Amino acid sequence: MTAPGPLILHDYWRSGASYRVRIALNIKGLAYEQVAHDLRAGAQRAPDYLALNPQGLVPALATDGGLLTQSLAIIEYLDETCPDPPLLPEGAADRAMVRAMAAAIACDIHPLQNARVLGWLGDALGADEVARKRWIGHWIGTGFAALEAMIRQHGRGFAFGSRLSLVDCCLVPQLYTARRFGVALEGFPALVEAAENAAGDPRVAAAHPDRQPDAPGAAALPA
Amino acid sequence: MTAPGPLILHDYWRSGASYRVRIALNIKGLAYEQVAHDLRAGAQRAPDYLALNPQGLVPALATDGGLLTQSLAIIEYLDETCPDPPLLPEGAADRAMVRAMAAAIACDIHPLQNARVLGWLGDALGADEVARKRWIGHWIGTGFAALEAMIRQHGRGFAFGSRLSLVDCCLVPQLYTARRFGVALEGFPALVEAAENAAGDPRVAAAHPDRQPDAPGAAALPA
Repeated sequence: MTAPGPLILHDYWRSGASYRVRIALNIKGLAYEQVAHDLRAGAQRAPDYLALNPQGLVPALATDGGLLTQSLAIIEYLDETCPDPPLLPEGAADRAMVRAMAAAIACDIHPLQNARVLGWLGDALGADEVARKRWIGHWIGTGFAALEAMIRQHGRGFAFGSRLSLVDCCLVPQLYTARRFGVALEGFPALVEAAENAAGDPRVAAAHPDRQPDAPGAAALPA
Repeated sequence: MTAPGPLILHDYWRSGASYRVRIALNIKGLAYEQVAHDLRAGAQRAPDYLALNPQGLVPALATDGGLLTQSLAIIEYLDETCPDPPLLPEGAADRAMVRAMAAAIACDIHPLQNARVLGWLGDALGADEVARKRWIGHWIGTGFAALEAMIRQHGRGFAFGSRLSLVDCCLVPQLYTARRFGVALEGFPALVEAAENAAGDPRVAAAHPDRQPDAPGAAALPA
């Protein structure tokens, strides 16, 4: 495994999956150029981007090994090619638990509340703002209840153990989204504490949506 | 990494994510006992199962290293502890592509058409049969269009390269679900060919829902 060459991250400031990859890149200390695609304007479906990435989604990471897609696959690649500091623990059972906690977010929560799904709920099913908020709250709440139990069992300061991991790459963006949608968080104290502990790390903080070049008013924020 | 001990798979015959794990276990040649949880009766939310698996989902795999959850995390564990035959290729970029193709199913398609989501669409949003079928067709069709392009680029007989991989563990169940819901497949010839090639392998065929002990009429089927 060789370290990745020059990296270009195709992302969008408020994309939760892009936020995950930024956290991983920052924890690894890898420099990267950002190319923003405005999802609200449908830029991810522009022909030149589709030619590069037929999925028409962000994030995608251009490397000297080609274009990588899907946030978890990208993060596993970074962990294999640039193993220090590791984002997965050593033992197979521990690695499975970390991957399961990440999947509980990436497979069971996030896909149900991203922009394209919420758009369809409104446009094709006529779900109004209230119905969409109930939908969001239900799936985030169900997933967070499961994660709360897993973090109580496996967390020691961070969501898994006592150091940043793949779980944090997924958890910090998911908590950001939950707050953005006004989801009640009183039932998930261990989850919130672990996520805030991770979010306080300067490398994680630098990946925050508000600090990306394409964020509204980003230039006005302190560096 | 040590080979896993006695294995107990908590599953349900028609669960797509359980089907993935059965395929992986069979490809690896690992024996396992099955404990079925009838999702239609809500058995996955019974207190004794929730005590074992707070996520209240299937599949879960009981191993001598503890209970593993989330199909992709389980399959990665099996690949690490029982590496022959491998379900991931060797190079980091190839591994990232296989994981991305699997995630295109596991994160972008499957979560939108599983039983609990379709239930909510009907119960809370009043979506009728026609609206639910349109929803299913839209998300499977969108995801399959992306996968078709990836398989055309990376497949050589199978979905990735010329041997069974993690992609097939996800693709075969997803095609089964697409057919079950009557999704039009004319636009995805490379995908269908790759999936049928994989499904023809006896180890993959043995994982089919209709051949599980809890399937209706399973006892009447030829072995």
